[in-house]
Amino acid sequence: MSRLDFQSSNAYLDTQMIRTSTLKKLRDIVGGEHYFDSPEQKLVYSYDATPLYEQLPEAIVSPQSVEQISKILQLANSEAFAVVPRGSGSGLSGGSIPVEDCIVLLTNHWDRILEIDERNLTVTVEPGIITGQLQTEMEKIGYLYPPDPGSSSICTIGGNVAENAGGIRGLKYGVTKDYVMGFEFVLPSGEVMMIGGKNVKDVSGYNLKDLLIGSEGTLGVFTKIVLRLIPKPEHSSTLLAYFDRASDSAEAVSAITASKITAAALEFLDNTTIRCVEDYARIGLPTTIEALLLIELDGRRGEVEQDLVQVSEICRRHRASQLRIAKSAAEATQLRTARKAAFAALARVKPTTILEDATVPRSEVAPMLEQINAIASKHDLMFGNFGHAGDGNLHPTCLTNEHDKDEIHRTELAFHEIYSAALRLGGTITGEHGIGLSKRKFLEHAASRTHLELMRSVKAIFDPNMVLNPGKIFTTRPRCEGPLPISKEKLNKYLELGAYC
Amino acid sequence: MSRLDFQSSNAYLDTQMIRTSTLKKLRDIVGGEHYFDSPEQKLVYSYDATPLYEQLPEAIVSPQSVEQISKILQLANSEAFAVVPRGSGSGLSGGSIPVEDCIVLLTNHWDRILEIDERNLTVTVEPGIITGQLQTEMEKIGYLYPPDPGSSSICTIGGNVAENAGGIRGLKYGVTKDYVMGFEFVLPSGEVMMIGGKNVKDVSGYNLKDLLIGSEGTLGVFTKIVLRLIPKPEHSSTLLAYFDRASDSAEAVSAITASKITAAALEFLDNTTIRCVEDYARIGLPTTIEALLLIELDGRRGEVEQDLVQVSEICRRHRASQLRIAKSAAEATQLRTARKAAFAALARVKPTTILEDATVPRSEVAPMLEQINAIASKHDLMFGNFGHAGDGNLHPTCLTNEHDKDEIHRTELAFHEIYSAALRLGGTITGEHGIGLSKRKFLEHAASRTHLELMRSVKAIFDPNMVLNPGKIFTTRPRCEGPLPISKEKLNKYLELGAYC
Repeated sequence: MSRLDFQSSNAYLDTQMIRTSTLKKLRDIVGGEHYFDSPEQKLVYSYDATPLYEQLPEAIVSPQSVEQISKILQLANSEAFAVVPRGSGSGLSGGSIPVEDCIVLLTNHWDRILEIDERNLTVTVEPGIITGQLQTEMEKIGYLYPPDPGSSSICTIGGNVAENAGGIRGLKYGVTKDYVMGFEFVLPSGEVMMIGGKNVKDVSGYNLKDLLIGSEGTLGVFTKIVLRLIPKPEHSSTLLAYFDRASDSAEAVSAITASKITAAALEFLDNTTIRCVEDYARIGLPTTIEALLLIELDGRRGEVEQDLVQVSEICRRHRASQLRIAKSAAEATQLRTARKAAFAALARVKPTTILEDATVPRSEVAPMLEQINAIASKHDLMFGNFGHAGDGNLHPTCLTNEHDKDEIHRTELAFHEIYSAALRLGGTITGEHGIGLSKRKFLEHAASRTHLELMRSVKAIFDPNMVLNPGKIFTTRPRCEGPLPISKEKLNKYLELGAYC
Repeated sequence: MSRLDFQSSNAYLDTQMIRTSTLKKLRDIVGGEHYFDSPEQKLVYSYDATPLYEQLPEAIVSPQSVEQISKILQLANSEAFAVVPRGSGSGLSGGSIPVEDCIVLLTNHWDRILEIDERNLTVTVEPGIITGQLQTEMEKIGYLYPPDPGSSSICTIGGNVAENAGGIRGLKYGVTKDYVMGFEFVLPSGEVMMIGGKNVKDVSGYNLKDLLIGSEGTLGVFTKIVLRLIPKPEHSSTLLAYFDRASDSAEAVSAITASKITAAALEFLDNTTIRCVEDYARIGLPTTIEALLLIELDGRRGEVEQDLVQVSEICRRHRASQLRIAKSAAEATQLRTARKAAFAALARVKPTTILEDATVPRSEVAPMLEQINAIASKHDLMFGNFGHAGDGNLHPTCLTNEHDKDEIHRTELAFHEIYSAALRLGGTITGEHGIGLSKRKFLEHAASRTHLELMRSVKAIFDPNMVLNPGKIFTTRPRCEGPLPISKEKLNKYLELGAYC
């Protein structure tokens, strides 16, 4: 439900469902100054960057030690409430949105760099450090932490690990998972465990590390993370190529891949997005072209210069109407920042912005874009399209209004068709945002029954009482079906709400 | 037990425990020409490259279709026998060694390249293709499949995926997991499932793909694998650096890492290994030096030439007594092949060669080598040491004799101490070989009880009847504790054998 409908139509949600005595115990664990439950505080943590979803938590806690997190989770098991971990709340699939009977557990104040180990090329951080800040600190000493989500200026590493965040350097450098060497985390039971460490190779038993990465805060709360660094490339260049026709830009992307040049970033913006970005950032983009590509190359200076010539030639051959090469680091940063502002720029146009990440094998980017446009047109919706053309990870973005029920309904239909199209093209319903709340239904279409059952069983072995971020990734049966007692009235409310069914 | 003790002391193992009627059904599934159960055939599949372990299977099947694999596993569930999948049998932790009441399921005849997709930079293969053959085929068309285990000339991709094989390019290019985009596999239940595909980014639910990779044939049988390729580097150079003192070579490795040059390979051989390799391959290595480093650099020609100068300078500064740069591709291949022959070369010295892969953070390579030498000397054992110095993945190799019970006992003690030392240094008991049969006990020391319990539970949700490669990774309770009936006599035999306890 939307934030605005919330207070009127769902008054019962204000009913406190976690016992007062339990909340008191929570407060005792973290201390009064780290416990929040005023209506204003609850409202602040009732939503994240995902549109259309919202729920009030019953309290918010800001634990000061691993032991406190452990005690909170033990209490959650014994007194039957849910714990929703939250970093910056910048996720786009609802991973940190409260669920029924829950408290929000903040980790964004755990934001220190604990150790830089140059002999092993690792950095150990707390989960709350901002990704962009970590990148900046590492670049100062000659290293690159490559994963670079669009939200890097606000998102946390803990959230990145929980969602296996992608970003614009995925093509050449991979995603978050490729840089996480190990972590300390608290299991839903409250037990603290370390998995992995500083070993480049480790095959000691099942790979639970990569199972935890991208588990969307449902299997554990990260408290310390060991990340891999790489030497910072000596040089980089940024090129914008303007195309009068979007299909030419898609062909240029294919030709660059075929030329065996691996760009650090190969980003696509369509006309709607270009116009919004220009209106927002005023960097001199032509607003009549159908598409632009932002191409970043990095490596040794000679190599980058050589690749830049070749990539420019490929773009010209595919009818780029103009090429713009950043003349300075400042200009490169400006172009890059403008691309990263695409979401914010689109969001200014209409009250509600639904940003998705249907992803296809990179060979299918052009057909996918065609289908998105056809679907938008069929449902009379305004879409901006941008994304990581180099790795097939697109962001069809619907500019809509959550108060226009008919338009929201058409939006839902359109996204359903977009996901179906992605799956038909061998793609996936989410490349980097995760399932969270917003794609649970689609996951049920995309994955086989057995596949889903295996995933649910994994959740059950980590979290038999469903205390940690329940109802995310897949719909969860009400916890009443577990070992915990529940009143009939409460069960009816669960079912009525539909949050768990 | 050793192969030679086998027939005398464990005569009961010849007792057929899978019912004749069941074996007949198996034969009917695959056809008479793909079913084998003569004593000679059973003996051939009773061991793999792991020393000291052996068990006769009751039959060997060579399925001709995914459907047949599915039917075999369904039968295994309904008639209570174990299925041990096997590629080339080149594993070093006993992953493909038969267990009680088992049949061996061969996949090494499924060896085709099914599709090369240059637009998505993927190759789809059957599990039985030989890794080295795939590499050669890809290099012919300008691509590199980087994972390069020492056994690449004989191992299969299916086995590499099952073990998450590492190899000499791990430092720069990662391990098998980093190149597996998806696969079709048969679950222990017999159900066929596809996970992943050609999407560079995919966060659609829990990451079961990476859980399956390295699961040592215990969670599924791979039938089709989609691998990621990268453009083949333009140029490569190979350098040998000889060091009179091993400690100087370790310092050189640290200095190369600190210089921010990422070598494609950075291999270490100690004096024992050098002497064995020289005796075996006759490539003119000096047999008096304490250590050599084999360093491979690749990339653009200019970059490689520049790095070669810098790496040479670092080696000289760390008292390398001589540098030898391969003057031709043929000489580079010769040097590389000699390094890869280290295991074979050492194996000629004494009847039994136990090759291990204790792995430490790369900063701890020098202390680890010191400890290995001290432990070898304490137990009066002959060790050769070689391995991937660049990524901390060492191969302490004991040259021994399985018939000398006292020496084998001392070997066991020594390896126990080596693993303990690796763990104390922040390392792992296995960098690339897996747990299999040979490290189950050590895994119990290395992992916490909860960690082990989570792994066991993962096995249980995939394979509740324990039909697929049971008793690997962790000791398994006899299947009698599951839903299947077992005679008391049979249970006693299980326990006596110790295979499951």
